[in-house]
Amino acid sequence: MPIITIKMIEGRTDEQKRALVQEVTEAVSKTVNAPKENIAIIIEEMSKNHYATAGILQMDK
Amino acid sequence: MPIITIKMIEGRTDEQKRALVQEVTEAVSKTVNAPKENIAIIIEEMSKNHYATAGILQMDK
Amino acid sequence: MPIITIKMIEGRTDEQKRALVQEVTEAVSKTVNAPKENIAIIIEEMSKNHYATAGILQMDK
Amino acid sequence: MPIITIKMIEGRTDEQKRALVQEVTEAVSKTVNAPKENIAIIIEEMSKNHYATAGILQMDK
Amino acid sequence: MPIITIKMIEGRTDEQKRALVQEVTEAVSKTVNAPKENIAIIIEEMSKNHYATAGILQMDK
Amino acid sequence: MPIITIKMIEGRTDEQKRALVQEVTEAVSKTVNAPKENIAIIIEEMSKNHYATAGILQMDK
Repeated sequence: MPIITIKMIEGRTDEQKRALVQEVTEAVSKTVNAPKENIAIIIEEMSKNHYATAGILQMDK
Repeated sequence: MPIITIKMIEGRTDEQKRALVQEVTEAVSKTVNAPKENIAIIIEEMSKNHYATAGILQMDK
Repeated sequence: MPIITIKMIEGRTDEQKRALVQEVTEAVSKTVNAPKENIAIIIEEMSKNHYATAGILQMDK
Repeated sequence: MPIITIKMIEGRTDEQKRALVQEVTEAVSKTVNAPKENIAIIIEEMSKNHYATAGILQMDK
Repeated sequence: MPIITIKMIEGRTDEQKRALVQEVTEAVSKTVNAPKENIAIIIEEMSKNHYATAGILQMDK
Repeated sequence: MPIITIKMIEGRTDEQKRALVQEVTEAVSKTVNAPKENIAIIIEEMSKNHYATAGILQMDK
């Protein structure tokens, strides 16, 4: 039942995403005692003109 | 005032989305007694390499 | 697989929430052709000092 | 530490987004007394077939 | 139509939240040219055992 | 910069949450090559009358 959303800057390969969801699922399953089949993960990529810290877009850093 | 977000795998037609927002708005309006004008819906599509269950991306199933 | 989040002002009864998730699930299942078992709904309630439109908190309206 | 998500219809220029994140960061920093470096903003654009009010998609209005 | 979500550690007063939504609404309205009436803001507070950076809960820092 | 949100049914101990954020941070850091200091995690708990699958609230299962 855990539903995990991961927001990150775009540009990772499918191979990296494959490893990401596998290892995060294992980490969640183990620490909160949830069956892997019940864990869903959504990846949301942000472009560099859509993410800012300290008031400055990532594209301008 | 209800704000509804619907995340689903990409690929539905505009005709399906049109029916989706109409029927969900009616269901929410009726059951929680909110005027339709106050109900907002956001559709967010996920590609198959951005959604996983059981640690496996949808693209690999 | 559709994951639906419904944000609304707090105060509905469990009976209303029961009807809400049942009818929204049916509306989504029918219009985008998804099995009901694959549809998850999360209700998130907002208190009146945590929601604003036009720059004014709901508690001050 | 404040994390702000801004969802809006697509079509703003990068210049508008630059001003948006700068001024929202200042508004948050000033009113809740948080250092600017700790404030993150995510912009999420919605296409007109992915946003609805009153049960009608923006593309049909 | 912009919908803004602000997540922050709990503990601000209603007076601070009142100023927060007023000033953020003005900043968004001005920079992306949206009428104030169309801007909605949701505040979501996080407790210190529900927010982490660098793998450490805020409560343990 | 990755921002991770974990929604799950309420009831885990602080000890479990401590392990959860530590292990998820490590999994994300390793697989997408992000420094741990840049990874933020938000835990959002759902009560059993606020989560449904197949149109049925968790409290009724």
